[in-house]
Amino acid sequence: MSEPLQSGHARKRRKATSSEDVAARAGVSRSTVSRVFTPGARVAEETRRRVLRAAREVGYRADAPVPERAARQTVGLVMGALDNPFYNTVMTAFLSRLQRRDVQTLCYVAEDLETAEDCVSALLDNRVDAIIAAALGARSSAIAACADAGVPLILFNRAVEADGVSSVQTDNVAGGRTVADFLFRAGHRKFSFINGLDGSSTNRDRLRGFTEHLAACGATAPMQEYGEYTYEGGREAAKRLMCAAEPPDAIFCANDIMAFGVLDCLRGDLGLRTPQDVSVIGFDDVPMAAWPSFGLTTVRQRRTMMIEATMDRLEAHLAGAGDAARRIVIEGRLIVRSSARLPRP
Amino acid sequence: MSEPLQSGHARKRRKATSSEDVAARAGVSRSTVSRVFTPGARVAEETRRRVLRAAREVGYRADAPVPERAARQTVGLVMGALDNPFYNTVMTAFLSRLQRRDVQTLCYVAEDLETAEDCVSALLDNRVDAIIAAALGARSSAIAACADAGVPLILFNRAVEADGVSSVQTDNVAGGRTVADFLFRAGHRKFSFINGLDGSSTNRDRLRGFTEHLAACGATAPMQEYGEYTYEGGREAAKRLMCAAEPPDAIFCANDIMAFGVLDCLRGDLGLRTPQDVSVIGFDDVPMAAWPSFGLTTVRQRRTMMIEATMDRLEAHLAGAGDAARRIVIEGRLIVRSSARLPRP
Repeated sequence: MSEPLQSGHARKRRKATSSEDVAARAGVSRSTVSRVFTPGARVAEETRRRVLRAAREVGYRADAPVPERAARQTVGLVMGALDNPFYNTVMTAFLSRLQRRDVQTLCYVAEDLETAEDCVSALLDNRVDAIIAAALGARSSAIAACADAGVPLILFNRAVEADGVSSVQTDNVAGGRTVADFLFRAGHRKFSFINGLDGSSTNRDRLRGFTEHLAACGATAPMQEYGEYTYEGGREAAKRLMCAAEPPDAIFCANDIMAFGVLDCLRGDLGLRTPQDVSVIGFDDVPMAAWPSFGLTTVRQRRTMMIEATMDRLEAHLAGAGDAARRIVIEGRLIVRSSARLPRP
Repeated sequence: MSEPLQSGHARKRRKATSSEDVAARAGVSRSTVSRVFTPGARVAEETRRRVLRAAREVGYRADAPVPERAARQTVGLVMGALDNPFYNTVMTAFLSRLQRRDVQTLCYVAEDLETAEDCVSALLDNRVDAIIAAALGARSSAIAACADAGVPLILFNRAVEADGVSSVQTDNVAGGRTVADFLFRAGHRKFSFINGLDGSSTNRDRLRGFTEHLAACGATAPMQEYGEYTYEGGREAAKRLMCAAEPPDAIFCANDIMAFGVLDCLRGDLGLRTPQDVSVIGFDDVPMAAWPSFGLTTVRQRRTMMIEATMDRLEAHLAGAGDAARRIVIEGRLIVRSSARLPRP
């Protein structure tokens, strides 16, 4: 606790502190301190920040006013509902990466696809330098609005068919196919799929891969239910599925959080065993999927790789590269835990 | 799928669309459309937004340019690690409320108390109109920096001892006391407490209420462990506690997410039963606490009430009310589920 006291004390004897005190506290040379307080001199942003903090802490006031920096770049971030742990992990990762690059971030959350349109429109009013959006419909009119305004748009976890727009996503069709293959080889024949949101491209592609591969195996088409990408939605959908005349013995959920609701319904509400009675597979591999309470078999979206690819696209777009737009598709990976039966050897 | 086609078509015959088309699409009168495109005319922000979207969709271009609005107010939001579900629920709530009021939000996440200082300092550089911070240490130098800069600061879920600063928090001392009382009356005598972060006022106050009340009951002081407010931290802390020569039979965790780790350790890793072998109580009441997989007894922070109080303070500060600063303390409430034994009648 000596530090806060010291800085409180220093505040009182402001005039006595010198740039040397600041240099010592910040762990930099005096000339660096001097550069920070010289208009126009080049200093790494992190160093500048550290020196200014040290100056504040020891109560140092240079003769020059606190230096302004060049206007920061501003990026708009439109995220889906943060009660989906996938989006909050992604949001934290984007915010800390953008913070580190000293880009400021205007944030919006969109509970549905229509709100997402409004968010993009507000960001365009605010003249942001670029937009990263994780919650737009594939045919969003916001895509044209960004193009009209000349603001680069990067779609995260979304497909896009427009020119000039970058997108980064998992190969959702292949993910759906992998799940179908795994469940079919485990001996399942009564399949079901719990949809998230109808208009979302991720949902459409996961379902397509799943049904196409099941058809190729000669299996009957999966029963379908709807869970709105939420825990409660998944839990209710599972209840409806299991009350059917011929309930499924394998449930593939379009995301993990619905799968947690399904597991809690099967085990908690209905007293069934997983995977002995029913196999459950999710999509995302959020951190909770690995918790022993769930042990969820799921398709991992390689978040770090996706986020890095998005940051690369962002930098290319901000640098004004004419060919910055790319459609990046990253292979998912089935993570096998205990919620689904294993394929027979 | 007829809508996107129609709007694509409309884009081509731009000149033919009239304000009537916009009015019909937006569901407003023609005079409202006209007001939106008249500089200086008053229109509710939501209406303005809807009309502009409709105009974009039907390809309408008024003779007047798209109206600019007055500069938006900007609020800075500094949140704790979003992998704590408490913060992501809070973040979503703040963002949607601020969006609705057409305030733009610059977001920062701070994994620790020192990063939080830097975030506030970046926000001050950016000349925000006010800051809501949920992750500052109680003696943060950022508090003085905001006062120097004349930027209102509202601490959320944090205590503060400075003038001019508003704070909104749960009565953490009382919460700790309630938990001690509940566990003592359930017959427990071997108590333990898992700390979150050492420098945080919430942790300090929850521990204080807990130990003071246990002392008043004549119980021995609780064993203490540290879990860094994370799931993994809680799981490891529980392992260490249960390996002690005299393991506790009641564990109070400074937040819910550590309690989930504790439950998974006790039941999954060690094969113990809750609450028969060990009682576990958390703090926050995040949505997952109610899931049957956890059924966590916990102290509910009244999030909605806390968020509304914060928004009220924000408006008072932004309106420049001289006496805007308030310290608001909201009573928590013990939510009894199945993870802790019930008091004897």
